[in-house]
Amino acid sequence: MSSKTEIELRREFHTYPESGWTEFRTTARIIEELESLGLKVEYGPSLHVKEKMFGLPDPDRLEACYERALKESDRPDLIEKMKGGYTGCLTRIEGALPGPLLGIRVDIDCNDVTEAADEKHRPFREGFASVHPGCMHACGHDAHTAIGIGLARKLVEMRDRLRGTVLLVFQPGEEGLRGAASMTAAGLFSDCDYFIGGHIGLKNYPFGTVGVSSTGILSSTKLDVFYQGKAAHAGASPQLGRNAMAAAATAVLNLLAIPRHSDGASRINIGTLEAGSGRNVIPDKARLTIETRGATPAINEYMEAAANRVIKAAAEMYECGYSTQYMGGANSVECDMDLADWIGEVAAPLKGVTNILRVFPFGGGEDVTTMMRDVQKHGGKVTEMAFPFPLIAPHHNNYFDIDENVIDLAIRVYTEIALRIADFQNK
Amino acid sequence: MSSKTEIELRREFHTYPESGWTEFRTTARIIEELESLGLKVEYGPSLHVKEKMFGLPDPDRLEACYERALKESDRPDLIEKMKGGYTGCLTRIEGALPGPLLGIRVDIDCNDVTEAADEKHRPFREGFASVHPGCMHACGHDAHTAIGIGLARKLVEMRDRLRGTVLLVFQPGEEGLRGAASMTAAGLFSDCDYFIGGHIGLKNYPFGTVGVSSTGILSSTKLDVFYQGKAAHAGASPQLGRNAMAAAATAVLNLLAIPRHSDGASRINIGTLEAGSGRNVIPDKARLTIETRGATPAINEYMEAAANRVIKAAAEMYECGYSTQYMGGANSVECDMDLADWIGEVAAPLKGVTNILRVFPFGGGEDVTTMMRDVQKHGGKVTEMAFPFPLIAPHHNNYFDIDENVIDLAIRVYTEIALRIADFQNK
Amino acid sequence: MSSKTEIELRREFHTYPESGWTEFRTTARIIEELESLGLKVEYGPSLHVKEKMFGLPDPDRLEACYERALKESDRPDLIEKMKGGYTGCLTRIEGALPGPLLGIRVDIDCNDVTEAADEKHRPFREGFASVHPGCMHACGHDAHTAIGIGLARKLVEMRDRLRGTVLLVFQPGEEGLRGAASMTAAGLFSDCDYFIGGHIGLKNYPFGTVGVSSTGILSSTKLDVFYQGKAAHAGASPQLGRNAMAAAATAVLNLLAIPRHSDGASRINIGTLEAGSGRNVIPDKARLTIETRGATPAINEYMEAAANRVIKAAAEMYECGYSTQYMGGANSVECDMDLADWIGEVAAPLKGVTNILRVFPFGGGEDVTTMMRDVQKHGGKVTEMAFPFPLIAPHHNNYFDIDENVIDLAIRVYTEIALRIADFQNK
Amino acid sequence: MSSKTEIELRREFHTYPESGWTEFRTTARIIEELESLGLKVEYGPSLHVKEKMFGLPDPDRLEACYERALKESDRPDLIEKMKGGYTGCLTRIEGALPGPLLGIRVDIDCNDVTEAADEKHRPFREGFASVHPGCMHACGHDAHTAIGIGLARKLVEMRDRLRGTVLLVFQPGEEGLRGAASMTAAGLFSDCDYFIGGHIGLKNYPFGTVGVSSTGILSSTKLDVFYQGKAAHAGASPQLGRNAMAAAATAVLNLLAIPRHSDGASRINIGTLEAGSGRNVIPDKARLTIETRGATPAINEYMEAAANRVIKAAAEMYECGYSTQYMGGANSVECDMDLADWIGEVAAPLKGVTNILRVFPFGGGEDVTTMMRDVQKHGGKVTEMAFPFPLIAPHHNNYFDIDENVIDLAIRVYTEIALRIADFQNK
Repeated sequence: MSSKTEIELRREFHTYPESGWTEFRTTARIIEELESLGLKVEYGPSLHVKEKMFGLPDPDRLEACYERALKESDRPDLIEKMKGGYTGCLTRIEGALPGPLLGIRVDIDCNDVTEAADEKHRPFREGFASVHPGCMHACGHDAHTAIGIGLARKLVEMRDRLRGTVLLVFQPGEEGLRGAASMTAAGLFSDCDYFIGGHIGLKNYPFGTVGVSSTGILSSTKLDVFYQGKAAHAGASPQLGRNAMAAAATAVLNLLAIPRHSDGASRINIGTLEAGSGRNVIPDKARLTIETRGATPAINEYMEAAANRVIKAAAEMYECGYSTQYMGGANSVECDMDLADWIGEVAAPLKGVTNILRVFPFGGGEDVTTMMRDVQKHGGKVTEMAFPFPLIAPHHNNYFDIDENVIDLAIRVYTEIALRIADFQNK
Repeated sequence: MSSKTEIELRREFHTYPESGWTEFRTTARIIEELESLGLKVEYGPSLHVKEKMFGLPDPDRLEACYERALKESDRPDLIEKMKGGYTGCLTRIEGALPGPLLGIRVDIDCNDVTEAADEKHRPFREGFASVHPGCMHACGHDAHTAIGIGLARKLVEMRDRLRGTVLLVFQPGEEGLRGAASMTAAGLFSDCDYFIGGHIGLKNYPFGTVGVSSTGILSSTKLDVFYQGKAAHAGASPQLGRNAMAAAATAVLNLLAIPRHSDGASRINIGTLEAGSGRNVIPDKARLTIETRGATPAINEYMEAAANRVIKAAAEMYECGYSTQYMGGANSVECDMDLADWIGEVAAPLKGVTNILRVFPFGGGEDVTTMMRDVQKHGGKVTEMAFPFPLIAPHHNNYFDIDENVIDLAIRVYTEIALRIADFQNK
Repeated sequence: MSSKTEIELRREFHTYPESGWTEFRTTARIIEELESLGLKVEYGPSLHVKEKMFGLPDPDRLEACYERALKESDRPDLIEKMKGGYTGCLTRIEGALPGPLLGIRVDIDCNDVTEAADEKHRPFREGFASVHPGCMHACGHDAHTAIGIGLARKLVEMRDRLRGTVLLVFQPGEEGLRGAASMTAAGLFSDCDYFIGGHIGLKNYPFGTVGVSSTGILSSTKLDVFYQGKAAHAGASPQLGRNAMAAAATAVLNLLAIPRHSDGASRINIGTLEAGSGRNVIPDKARLTIETRGATPAINEYMEAAANRVIKAAAEMYECGYSTQYMGGANSVECDMDLADWIGEVAAPLKGVTNILRVFPFGGGEDVTTMMRDVQKHGGKVTEMAFPFPLIAPHHNNYFDIDENVIDLAIRVYTEIALRIADFQNK
Repeated sequence: MSSKTEIELRREFHTYPESGWTEFRTTARIIEELESLGLKVEYGPSLHVKEKMFGLPDPDRLEACYERALKESDRPDLIEKMKGGYTGCLTRIEGALPGPLLGIRVDIDCNDVTEAADEKHRPFREGFASVHPGCMHACGHDAHTAIGIGLARKLVEMRDRLRGTVLLVFQPGEEGLRGAASMTAAGLFSDCDYFIGGHIGLKNYPFGTVGVSSTGILSSTKLDVFYQGKAAHAGASPQLGRNAMAAAATAVLNLLAIPRHSDGASRINIGTLEAGSGRNVIPDKARLTIETRGATPAINEYMEAAANRVIKAAAEMYECGYSTQYMGGANSVECDMDLADWIGEVAAPLKGVTNILRVFPFGGGEDVTTMMRDVQKHGGKVTEMAFPFPLIAPHHNNYFDIDENVIDLAIRVYTEIALRIADFQNK
């Protein structure tokens, strides 16, 4: 067993953040820790379905991150097995007694943010800020990872009291809703009787609040669009061009103009747009990154269909070729409230738990829902928990930091659930 | 022979203006005048090819104008033969001596303008302003018509000196470039050796200036576009609509954005747009009137093709049906400069001619070019003349008026050309 | 007392529908009926604040409707006092015993719809279809009016049992949210202890359902926008124009693109757009009718502020002048649930009431909220009731018709509330 | 004197291309060559007016190019004096005899193009392709520079026959129309009696054609625009953002829609657009590079004014801040045809000159016009010459190459003009 505490682990992960599909060093460290507990760990291509690994970085970036990880890790042997983006891992902790299969998932990737180099920012001040420019754990997945390891430690310790099995999943690429689809398609969760996700932070509540179900996880689709036009000299022969930027600008305005849906929240964003090649050249190419959201899968599908129609028509308007690439996505989920309420009863008496929030207003996207929907489809029950605390800075901000006490709290709540889930089954 | 002078005729036509395809009373009066000279006049359906009668008014308006004309005319028998819009007429004045066939065309329709009811405006002050609201001779076609009749009078008078035949054409529907195509398709001009069009006014030159050729008659296409969307309650279910107004707005901006052409002038205008049916209803329909222009037929075709692409894509973007209707058009023409120069020599010595302008900068559209191109195709020679004078108000303005002396001048110039065109042929 | 039943009255109003601010004949008939009961009726300018009479028809239309009413009415003397749009009326029914002041409002205007002339449509088949083209009671206000009169009849009958006073308000111009502001500004409701609105139909529920409060009445603002550009010849000098249509098209797309609000539903619609004056003229004017909505007043204000910004910037982009006119609006309201619940208790035992709906999902706009908010501001309690039934056709559709049994049901429920409201006060 | 021929010099410049304001190594080599002829060379800050050095690269790039030049040059001492972008140089070759001051300008910068690495491309095949990725002489300025040096050699050789003085100007930053303004503002050309610019290639004519004047050099303005919006989470609170991309897209469409000008050619291009920072963030910034053009300064000013109006209104529409930076520009010029015709007479008899083109259809932009207009303003005469040849690939294409024989031809033509310009003055 490693000599590092969970808080120390969290700080180590914070120092070496890795974004979606490049969590090479991170996964290797998780494997080391889990194997040091005597656990068998699965990792590499068997955890994934290649065609479902959405939003992979471009090959150059993937290779560069791989090389970086090889240098930063003590275990290049592990990393080599993840080459190509096959990051993440899982382990099964089998109890001494029979009982249900409980899946618990934590996510391990970081954000594309450059961390604040400012004395006011604790990770910088205390020397554990990111050493990877453009990468930062600004969403708490460093803590999630540490919680996963801490939970494994506890459960191994208490294995004789454990009834059933805990499937502990360390998922890559949650940002951009990219990693869950691939693991789910690999069939890893279909036999779970129960499945729990969780997130720290997110909203301002007093420390000690535990959300036992979540709402407002919007369904979402991530798309990249590329327009191929034709260059021409803007002064000498503008009529010979096919203006990819004009197509993109038309798409942008008309995407934003997709009608609101009266059944619930809908969203569309064109996050980035790059177009053209020179001031005096009719722009021959344009690239957009887009996301749609909806309060329900149906609303998101409506947005996505409308978006595809706009994208196509804008191309045709300017005689441009175009391609659309699916980069990620997930659907909203309905938590099973009987499970959630039972968890509330289990968690309420625990030390440090001051308030049970029956329904946590999640707000953002979260692709653990893909796993959850798969479990529900096979007859299991699921919920997405929340461990909020007063936020210093918003998630994804370069000053984001956490209340590290939440790590211990979450480990203890999860542990208690795992030890008692057989009771719920027997109710 | 009518007792009315040409100026009196012009004022009569000014009082009873009729717009394109509704020149029922006007045509009847022309026929009366020509027949009173002993000429045989052709009119009615035989002058037209129904499928080429572009931009016909809607049936209600056509019927209302027909009824109005029946009331205003002494000759309902003539008007009945034009029912359905078969307006305009032609006559052939055969000389005593053999010679070439010379076509001369005048246009007879008015504009969709309500005449100024203002003492400053001579037609109003002197009592010959339009009695048809929304109709006004604001482009001088009343004078053109009078010139045509006056020319017929002169030529009949001088028939013994006339070598060859003059085909005198009174064309309906020049505004909107609608009438020439139908008459040309009927094959009326294919045997002309020479063909002359002409226009009074247009640009500010001293009275007495005669333009013997024209440039800058842009090629043009007139289109009506209709978008069919789907209504929905804007508050209760906006997602159920198909927004025809949004399609139209997208079309408008992207039509205006069609790239300029480096080979010469191009134009696009969306002249009118009507969309929607109520404040709280997603607009289910939109109607646009459009025109493209180009310095050459190729440039106009480029504009029209680009416009059609935009129109179609805007419909698809909003899942709207759409239809495009050709409402008129004409191409630029290259005048035959040897004919023009010869006309210059003929006209220069005439009384009142103070200046020969070799190339008149025409500027607008004019569908006599359709007849001219047909004549050129069959080996004939053509030109478009101009009889400018200082303008009081721009053409198509509700204060437009003419220098009536131009009527006599034009008659005398055309007469001289007709009497001597055989000389040009023999050169 | 009139010999007409309430159903007969409803059918009479259905035959002579009058749109907002032109309910001259309608108001005169209401006055006749109320006066025949011995009631004193207030009407004319004293009920309104001129500057708050939003969305008045243009003077020509107002005049034409006034003239029509003079012809159709037996009481031109009454109508003359409403000249200028001062329609609507109110009466106070004072009980024999002391008690609270209860306001009840019904709306009396029709929709801008031409009624279906189809045997399948009962009003047509049975001979009481609208005789006013373009006007139809397609929202049930004919029944509301009849209910108001029927309620007056009942209360007068039972006056000796009535504790307190019922203020019965017949409001003009509910469509477009136009009439309530003017009456409210006149201070007519500020002393009400309780205030009740109600609507028949709207949603499909079994007959006998009574909604005792409503939700989802969106805040809304109605605006007309006018762009003044500059005409120019589209072929000869496009650069001299100021394209009001381009400004309007830019406004349309960017209005639709106003970002969604995460606090709740938002809406924007540009219902109608008319622009331009001729095919070959740069459009010099454009007119748009717009509405914004929001689940809360704050969201609607956000939409309206964003809309105004877009409207202004689009004008400046094309050097156009512009003006924006407020045409109507109203805010959402929170019904007082203690009042609503008490009404539920009162209504439940009544004959024909089969189901009490605690919160009716209203959906559309309704400017009775302006009166209600005023009453709440002064310490009163309010609710908006609903009397749904299975719908044959949607509201505002030209085949709309009602289950006429709802008239009697609503009269009986309102009567019971009026007779017992003093009990609620004393609770 | 250097041992390199002019063709060898051209190939050396081709190998080390440097873009506008970074022609450090290039200028140093020119100085070396000129000084080796015994000429005094001016260079550094005295040639420029800092505020008129439009379109300077950003400081990082300027520094990187400076460092590169320091490494590549034998004369870092010269380069240090150009630090900050003060590139380019000039020399005066004084004749033995008195006479006029003749300015001749050559431009020395390269394009932002990566050269084709393809055996079919001679510079690659023969080993003199660019060693600077993203930089390529794809417009013939390498040859222009060699022509300038060759001309200096000839004139020094023939100094005893030279009447008057030749001011030989090596201008930086012609691409983007950036360098001429700064040198002109420094007052370097105000005393020139004659001033000649020239360009090789451009259009397909047989080798030996010499253009003695040019038309169609459009007036042009180069602008960079930056929109500053406000980021917000696209899912959680889209209403809090200020969408800089939407502002930019609105600007793009409406810039393209600026009305055509009837007085002559107009152009607008938005060459590049970069906007946004992440898929799920409301775009907080956007950057556009724009150029306007016009057949006359007035048309270009019209386009620029309209563009500025659109840019500003688009910012206001989305509550974005914005800034516009002038990056370069130049106006069209009317060549002095008496000078041009005289040059035609001088050049026609020269060996290798097969055809004198009186007016060369230039087409693109060229900022030598700024110098020329200054000379004309002070009473001098000017022309822009052309030395076309059959083109293998278009200018600015990565396969562009020249017929190197044009170098010798141009040197001989310029030399003859210089030797005989006093005759023209004396005519």
